[in-house]
Amino acid sequence: MTPARGDHDARRADVSEAVWRVLAERGFGGLTLRAVAAEMQATTGLLTHYFPNKRALVAHALEVLEQRSADRPRPAVAAVGAADGSGASTLRLLRAVLLDILPLTPESRDGNRIWVGSWDVALTDPELAAEHAARYRRARERLTALIADAQRAGALPPGRSAADLAASAQSHVLGLVVQALLAPQEFPPERQTALLDAYLDALRTS
Amino acid sequence: MTPARGDHDARRADVSEAVWRVLAERGFGGLTLRAVAAEMQATTGLLTHYFPNKRALVAHALEVLEQRSADRPRPAVAAVGAADGSGASTLRLLRAVLLDILPLTPESRDGNRIWVGSWDVALTDPELAAEHAARYRRARERLTALIADAQRAGALPPGRSAADLAASAQSHVLGLVVQALLAPQEFPPERQTALLDAYLDALRTS
Repeated sequence: MTPARGDHDARRADVSEAVWRVLAERGFGGLTLRAVAAEMQATTGLLTHYFPNKRALVAHALEVLEQRSADRPRPAVAAVGAADGSGASTLRLLRAVLLDILPLTPESRDGNRIWVGSWDVALTDPELAAEHAARYRRARERLTALIADAQRAGALPPGRSAADLAASAQSHVLGLVVQALLAPQEFPPERQTALLDAYLDALRTS
Repeated sequence: MTPARGDHDARRADVSEAVWRVLAERGFGGLTLRAVAAEMQATTGLLTHYFPNKRALVAHALEVLEQRSADRPRPAVAAVGAADGSGASTLRLLRAVLLDILPLTPESRDGNRIWVGSWDVALTDPELAAEHAARYRRARERLTALIADAQRAGALPPGRSAADLAASAQSHVLGLVVQALLAPQEFPPERQTALLDAYLDALRTS
């Protein structure tokens, strides 16, 4: 018996919530229909109405991750507001965008932990890898635009390709996320922030 | 019936080989007793002699990964040889150590793909996370020593903590690995090398 449409949508939100909790606790390696069903106190049979197989569950989990990331709080960006075209405000916005990626809060740790875990499943499947690569490409394109603005305004040296600087900045932040998740005591929020600031200072003055 | 000791050791090497092939193809998410048994054309029952449960299999996979990484070829380091105490040779060695981490060859892509996949399982288990964090800490300590040598020899600016610079360099390389694995066409070996060189130049001249 397939549930009625209204129930189906409401239940789908519950399913997404349960998928998120399973991922935060056990990673993609622990994401199974059974684990999600247990988290919802539902039967595995109910879950198969939504996900005919493991791959469908993983694809949904990646969508949940993207949606949650799009909706997440961005306290640093909110604090600096939009850039006004000056080099200083563009640099402040660039710093804020990068800062809001780092796992500086428990919520951001959960989200980042799930992103890092998603790389394992994404790399096993060409289609998922391409979708994931496109997500990171879009993020790099946003960084590239900010960096090009900062170069035009004289706040970053003009000599280097903005796309290469964006790839470098994204590398730096992603690698810092991994290290901070694995060794939170060595990488408390203050040190993560200081490492990002030193990286941006080196860009500015090199 | 438990196999005799000599058989056991020989078979264990076969098991490690099969574990590696499963990881390279399907990631940690696809690492199951059944998949390893199929790869060896053995029964799942045989595998349970070696691994009583999934966690034992994962722990063994992380050991195989560490051993393979320790034994892997390091062409860039081999090409530059040991540092002779001069700033220039220390910088060359630092560059070579970082370069040998990047996925510049198919073998290194396999190894890196498995390292990246290992973060998902490591982050679900405090003990595995601590062991993994210790592996990255040891790598940072080796980088810290090289960077401190380069600073003493005047090849890098003396103002910043060598440990922070090592954490930054490791971040940069790890993040670049992730991007290059997800988007190999955007990050061919030449671009990975150019991004690393630009990062090192910025360190040198900032």
